[in-house]
Amino acid sequence: MKSLNKYIWIITVVIGLIACSHESDNTHYPKVILTEAAVKAIRAEQANLPLLKHSIENLQKKVEKEMLKGIDVPTPKDPAGGYTHEQHKQNYINMYGAGVLWQVTGEAHFANYVRDMLLEYAEMYPTLKEHPVKASYAPGRLFWQQLNEAVWLVYVSQAFDCIAGVLTTEQKDTIEKQLLLPYADFLSVENPRVFNRVHNHGVWAAAAVGMAGFAMDNDELVNRAFNGVETGPKGELGAGFLVQLTQLFSPDGYYTEGPYYQRYAMLPYLLFAQAIDNNRPEMRIFEYHDGVLQKAALTTLQLTNTNGQFFPINDALKSMSYMSTSLVHAVDFVYGLDESQKELLSIAREQGEVIICEAGLKVARAIANGESQPFKWESNEYRDGPEGKQGAFGVLRSNTGKNSQTVTMKYASQGMGHGHFDRLTISFYDQGKEILQDYGAARYVNVEYKHGGRYLPENKTWARQTIAHNTLVVDKDSQSEGKVKVASSHHSEPWVFDASKAEVKVMSAKENKAYEGVNMHRTIALLNIPELSNDAIILDLYRVESKRQHKYHLPYYYMGQMMHTNVEYKPETTQLKALGKNDGYQHLWNTGNGIMKAGANRFVWLNDDRFYTLTTEAQLNDKLVFARIGAGDPEFNLRNEPSVIIERGNTANTLFASTIEAHGNKHPVTELVNGLKGNVTDIKTLINNSEYTLVQLFLANKKQVTFAICNTNNDQSITHHLTANGQEYRWTGAYQLFK
Amino acid sequence: MKSLNKYIWIITVVIGLIACSHESDNTHYPKVILTEAAVKAIRAEQANLPLLKHSIENLQKKVEKEMLKGIDVPTPKDPAGGYTHEQHKQNYINMYGAGVLWQVTGEAHFANYVRDMLLEYAEMYPTLKEHPVKASYAPGRLFWQQLNEAVWLVYVSQAFDCIAGVLTTEQKDTIEKQLLLPYADFLSVENPRVFNRVHNHGVWAAAAVGMAGFAMDNDELVNRAFNGVETGPKGELGAGFLVQLTQLFSPDGYYTEGPYYQRYAMLPYLLFAQAIDNNRPEMRIFEYHDGVLQKAALTTLQLTNTNGQFFPINDALKSMSYMSTSLVHAVDFVYGLDESQKELLSIAREQGEVIICEAGLKVARAIANGESQPFKWESNEYRDGPEGKQGAFGVLRSNTGKNSQTVTMKYASQGMGHGHFDRLTISFYDQGKEILQDYGAARYVNVEYKHGGRYLPENKTWARQTIAHNTLVVDKDSQSEGKVKVASSHHSEPWVFDASKAEVKVMSAKENKAYEGVNMHRTIALLNIPELSNDAIILDLYRVESKRQHKYHLPYYYMGQMMHTNVEYKPETTQLKALGKNDGYQHLWNTGNGIMKAGANRFVWLNDDRFYTLTTEAQLNDKLVFARIGAGDPEFNLRNEPSVIIERGNTANTLFASTIEAHGNKHPVTELVNGLKGNVTDIKTLINNSEYTLVQLFLANKKQVTFAICNTNNDQSITHHLTANGQEYRWTGAYQLFK
Repeated sequence: MKSLNKYIWIITVVIGLIACSHESDNTHYPKVILTEAAVKAIRAEQANLPLLKHSIENLQKKVEKEMLKGIDVPTPKDPAGGYTHEQHKQNYINMYGAGVLWQVTGEAHFANYVRDMLLEYAEMYPTLKEHPVKASYAPGRLFWQQLNEAVWLVYVSQAFDCIAGVLTTEQKDTIEKQLLLPYADFLSVENPRVFNRVHNHGVWAAAAVGMAGFAMDNDELVNRAFNGVETGPKGELGAGFLVQLTQLFSPDGYYTEGPYYQRYAMLPYLLFAQAIDNNRPEMRIFEYHDGVLQKAALTTLQLTNTNGQFFPINDALKSMSYMSTSLVHAVDFVYGLDESQKELLSIAREQGEVIICEAGLKVARAIANGESQPFKWESNEYRDGPEGKQGAFGVLRSNTGKNSQTVTMKYASQGMGHGHFDRLTISFYDQGKEILQDYGAARYVNVEYKHGGRYLPENKTWARQTIAHNTLVVDKDSQSEGKVKVASSHHSEPWVFDASKAEVKVMSAKENKAYEGVNMHRTIALLNIPELSNDAIILDLYRVESKRQHKYHLPYYYMGQMMHTNVEYKPETTQLKALGKNDGYQHLWNTGNGIMKAGANRFVWLNDDRFYTLTTEAQLNDKLVFARIGAGDPEFNLRNEPSVIIERGNTANTLFASTIEAHGNKHPVTELVNGLKGNVTDIKTLINNSEYTLVQLFLANKKQVTFAICNTNNDQSITHHLTANGQEYRWTGAYQLFK
Repeated sequence: MKSLNKYIWIITVVIGLIACSHESDNTHYPKVILTEAAVKAIRAEQANLPLLKHSIENLQKKVEKEMLKGIDVPTPKDPAGGYTHEQHKQNYINMYGAGVLWQVTGEAHFANYVRDMLLEYAEMYPTLKEHPVKASYAPGRLFWQQLNEAVWLVYVSQAFDCIAGVLTTEQKDTIEKQLLLPYADFLSVENPRVFNRVHNHGVWAAAAVGMAGFAMDNDELVNRAFNGVETGPKGELGAGFLVQLTQLFSPDGYYTEGPYYQRYAMLPYLLFAQAIDNNRPEMRIFEYHDGVLQKAALTTLQLTNTNGQFFPINDALKSMSYMSTSLVHAVDFVYGLDESQKELLSIAREQGEVIICEAGLKVARAIANGESQPFKWESNEYRDGPEGKQGAFGVLRSNTGKNSQTVTMKYASQGMGHGHFDRLTISFYDQGKEILQDYGAARYVNVEYKHGGRYLPENKTWARQTIAHNTLVVDKDSQSEGKVKVASSHHSEPWVFDASKAEVKVMSAKENKAYEGVNMHRTIALLNIPELSNDAIILDLYRVESKRQHKYHLPYYYMGQMMHTNVEYKPETTQLKALGKNDGYQHLWNTGNGIMKAGANRFVWLNDDRFYTLTTEAQLNDKLVFARIGAGDPEFNLRNEPSVIIERGNTANTLFASTIEAHGNKHPVTELVNGLKGNVTDIKTLINNSEYTLVQLFLANKKQVTFAICNTNNDQSITHHLTANGQEYRWTGAYQLFK
């Protein structure tokens, strides 16, 4: 059967070559993403490379299904979601796929399909004016906005590149002069404002024009893409791709809007960079700006829980993961550059497909060869801002495997219009599951029922507000008055990040501008105490300083079912009221109210088959507010998930000292239960002042550990010495764990 | 490495045999569950049978870990959960495991461990009186209740059987006369009330005494187990195993408490039956009573969603599945009897282990041999009651695969003390996921925080009440006044069950006694219209007749997030109140109230990545009540899941005609959405009277289908003829789908 298939395949190739050979100059093309050498190798090896074979078959199935419908190039008319919009989108997908398939299968009908469709576009394009839907700041011609217009050309450049060899000189001329050149001009010289913009839209436009330039051997277009076009009265150059590369990602490859948007923003960078690497290898574009593109790709992979879903900070949808096409490109292209990164192969295996090009071939080859290594999820701090000076996003993990405990903390800049007002917020994952959640965005993308799939009203009134996050709310107001402009003018300050020690990993940051006159400083330490448990103890120290008294709220959005608390509380059983009227409080039902005793207060919940305990050191009159999301939600747009909120009123300077632990389990089938209790029996603040914070944990094995941090000096070489509770503490560096 | 292991294994066996050979009579034992022939075959083949090898290694790992702790046979003192209780439980598990391991590995320390522990028990047992914890109607000696006492002997009989060959005559005598014989007497002649009871406890006791009889070649014990012991003034025989067999399961192998309890109840039947089959093969015990035991095993497997979890009717925990040990026994023993049932092998593969005996060997062998076939989930009606005359539980599935749509309907008897007041309730699964849920039990088994792991107060006040289910509530009261005694005196009546046709599968049943003076009749039809979709349309016709007017509530506990409704409703956004004060209503928050227009009303929700639509034909003034579970729940014991309730007031006779559809999907990563709308555009009742119900569906392809059912005669040979809307309808049998 296998050899029969091979035989058929050879015949098909030969027929294909004969069918087109009288007009073929197929030694020159393709070269943009797919290359001549790659095509040869793919044809020779695909039968033995399951992942590549599967990817080609998959593409072929999709494209052939579309080709059966015939060619349809309608006059542009509809907005996004409408018929002409969707058809032009489908057309570039089909042309790209058919072009690639012509190369790897040699079946002539694929080439003919692309050729015929391009000729139809070439006939129509000169007749087009501005798109009739006037809704964008930058209207296109085929589409209502230039973003889609650029994406079209990114794919069509590749399709043209794949089939250019079969075109007659006349056909090639027609397509270039009536379609591709004026199209590229439109995106660049005719619309310098978009083209030169340091923004997602600008990057797509640069990639489109540059890739079209490579496909047509047109250096002028390539130069425009690199450097931008002239603008302003004095003919200065705007920002082209080379500037975009230095501006959008931080030196750690972090994108300020967060990983959900990073995944999307990365694709044009990756595609154009691969095209540059194929055609101007001497530029070493992937090493450009200290290898920022590779870093961005790897950072996006790292900014995931161990199921591969991106940390949902800012306006993020939680299901988005490294299974996305962008990340397939990222994995393949980075591996293509550096075949020593074997741990990328395990992600490629999960993705189940490769890009059909040389990089994808290398991935498929290495996987078939058994070279795959497990991906290692790292503890790391990802600095924000073009120069890495606008705060950071911290990730601590108990180990590098899929079963790790992970805590993230956001101490970055605002993240532009999609940012949330949630400085110093944390999230907690255990074995890939959300335990303390970030709500993410209030949106059902592409679900027309829900405001046409756009961001919902509750995204602004709830999801972006401070109270929706696991961070401190002062006087029931959101940070920075809930104003993007105010929040964008400042960022948090990293204080300590050290994940180098096995027994304690620490991240610590300060935020002094979110609330006027309030200085906040949060420290997260992952304590690894193997004699007690394989599960980490998370120490959470949230310090606040202010000259005035405030009401403080510190929420924990626990996922699961409440099991137990030692807090005396009054549940609301016959009537519920909202917790407030604004800043997100209007979306919380108040389901109960507890009064905590001074000392250790516990709250235990169950998530699937494991138990979790929050232990917090309360002060006299601290409250524990029980809440559930869902008030003020007339369209039932919100998920009705629970929270407990620690409330401390009439306080200026204070410390919220808590631990969070995963422990035990409950077997779904044997119904056996073990490890009902966590290992922290008590928690006591020994010192908390502007200089030092020392907190002691009492453990189930009757031992104590003490964590100390200096609040005024984070120099790792300075030695500290102080006395607390009659005990001397002496250490060097910003923090110390005393066992 | 493999051959090295084998070598070590051979040496170990030889040493083992030498170590014990001077006192061994190992030609006779074992014979209860494990047999001599099986041991030989297991030793010879295990290296090549991964599943068996894994099961043995797994057992060995567990037993060796326990053996390291030494032997501990404490004086009985504690109740369930306490130290002595748990230790005696662990001891029988360890002895059983060590006994089996002695047989299959030949390593002497396993046999010695069992021998030494049995001798310790033999020394202690004669000194024991009634257990000091006086909490059971039937106190034991090692344990607080005889149920545990019997389970102990079921396992210890097997352990003794495995190692009896290594005992000296004196040791054997001691163990039999000081321990096993008096222990068996205690469970039988000394406690005839429990032993003769047609009940779970009676079955364990019979199995224990009978298996001990086989192990000791004691026919008297075996006869007691078969026939019960003398009781009453005239020395009549009580119910033994042979009566139990005919009483507990219906002729379809259904157990009245439902599959969660069936799983548990089945184990002693299966074990004792296997022992009988090994020792009295001429009885053909598995064919007894029309093969009821095999049927019970297969029925339990069928009463699952396609993830293997049992339908959670009555007091059931939802995570329980065919991964349970009972079902490993069931799959192995049934396959052992009939090796043609290859579809059981796919379940054994999922289970990942086999019982170490001949049946398990056969399973492992067949799997290694690649004989596994996919399990087929069937549409079937499972009659309730010892003679199958107490109603039934119906299951309709759109196909036999894992991706099927499944609807269940409960029209059985009460199910004793664990039964819920939910006659004619339905549940709906799509691809194994709960879409319309049965709440199951309010309980966290073995979680001490939650009332010691027992049933929670809300199990009675909420989970058992009628409003907690997808069935009709009359005047806000639960069925049968919420009284088990009342409900147990009657059962529902099956009307139609026919799953033989591809285009429509039907189940229909009546319940006339749950509410005095109210006759209820529900019909579920799965319509398969391939030209529209691969997804079934579920037609739900709930007909009510009464001489008086009532308020009717028909809830649908949808799982997921509400996406859309065309019902005008007023949401509760600042304050929530409970829907009532009793019969479960006190546990529902009222989150909104809609007024439906006469005609088709739609409610659309999203579950994971698929859309679901409930379309219901409303009458003027019908309401749609939005609710969420969680009111009246001071300990946060309930899951806060949503519901919509159709309310129709001041009505005597009526029909609730609705459809439920699964449609489209939302891709988590591409974010593409399709199939937002279901295929039912309108639903109209053409006729609904005491004789006939005819309902017409208008479909997205502009066609109509009409479903007709006769309410007075369910004879499949009678011809019906009537006219509705100027159209003639003529059919033979109880129902018809007109396309």
